[in-house]
Amino acid sequence: MPKRENISMSVIRRLPRYYRFLNQLKRDGVTRISSTELSAKLGLTASQIRQDLNCFGGFGQQGYGYIVEQLAAEIGRILGVAHNYRTVLFGAGNLGRAIAAHMDFEELGFELIGIFDNAPQKVGTVIRGMEVLNTASFEDFCKDNKPEMAALCIPRTAVEATVDRLYPLGIHSYWNFSHYDITMKYPDAVVENVHLNDSLLTLCYRISNNPEASHEPTKK
Amino acid sequence: MPKRENISMSVIRRLPRYYRFLNQLKRDGVTRISSTELSAKLGLTASQIRQDLNCFGGFGQQGYGYIVEQLAAEIGRILGVAHNYRTVLFGAGNLGRAIAAHMDFEELGFELIGIFDNAPQKVGTVIRGMEVLNTASFEDFCKDNKPEMAALCIPRTAVEATVDRLYPLGIHSYWNFSHYDITMKYPDAVVENVHLNDSLLTLCYRISNNPEASHEPTKK
Repeated sequence: MPKRENISMSVIRRLPRYYRFLNQLKRDGVTRISSTELSAKLGLTASQIRQDLNCFGGFGQQGYGYIVEQLAAEIGRILGVAHNYRTVLFGAGNLGRAIAAHMDFEELGFELIGIFDNAPQKVGTVIRGMEVLNTASFEDFCKDNKPEMAALCIPRTAVEATVDRLYPLGIHSYWNFSHYDITMKYPDAVVENVHLNDSLLTLCYRISNNPEASHEPTKK
Repeated sequence: MPKRENISMSVIRRLPRYYRFLNQLKRDGVTRISSTELSAKLGLTASQIRQDLNCFGGFGQQGYGYIVEQLAAEIGRILGVAHNYRTVLFGAGNLGRAIAAHMDFEELGFELIGIFDNAPQKVGTVIRGMEVLNTASFEDFCKDNKPEMAALCIPRTAVEATVDRLYPLGIHSYWNFSHYDITMKYPDAVVENVHLNDSLLTLCYRISNNPEASHEPTKK
């Protein structure tokens, strides 16, 4: 019986990790696990895990642990992985091709139904068994397919015009790989950003400020 | 005159954003900017920006604003972007090829000096003007090139063995695209993770719990 009210954002951010890990246990044939074992493998304290998982109801049992399959299923329900949100991907360049080919959209709540680009040399090429379509045909595509989410693997400078086109078509959710801030113009949009540049800059800062990380023996 | 002691992690996490934005202003020919203008464009409060930037010394001047070039340069110094940490990339699959081709390593504090894979059909192919090398030759490569950071675009199951090999060679910093947790075994390693699966699952949760995001008109 899930108690889903008032789950804090910091718990939410840990859910994908629990979900991933429980599914791995399931594949390994593990049927139950104690919070102590879970904590050792996840690098969290057992009490934090107990607290987090209590938000989703009574799956833990004193001295018995969690039933892996049941807990994985419940967290999957909370995440909404069965929704299969119809997804289009914009941008069939290096990054877009990698994301299309690499990601298990179907395992993660989405269904990739179309890949779009406006470069003639990319339109018609095949990624993941799907022909890249011309962006010009997107409105027609929407009539039949009603996409709900767009993964944007296009340059920063192209994002504003693209969202201006997608938003009125009912696409209000974005997986955004650019540094353009969609919510400045569309505060209601649901946007998850992947900022690869910022991640690399943060790593640079952390190396620069950690004498262990760039010790003398590795210098030229 | 920078005051670099005691900069909190939450300020650090905002630095790449300031840095990116100030460089954009520089490219646009803007020489100075007030904290009010900065805040409008970055979606932060003016007082937060003033507080953050005060950590790096006296670049702001009442009624005058920040000198864009000076502030960008100082933040760049704090981030350490001039270090050009020698970087190798492991995994020339879809994701590795995209990361190698897509990222401006040189702008972000790193220098990509080698790409490695162990699949014979990938070794010898060219990405970004660089021949993919055989992982078997990595120890020899290290003698001459002394890499300091490794970007890991390899499957989760291959990461542990790879890090077991790289760590003793002096590579203690990792940009990790897998879900393997390197710091569990190497607590001293400096690791920045990019968890694309978790990002997509979080988006799924947020759509599922936001009635605006998947409203009726877009449903089939």
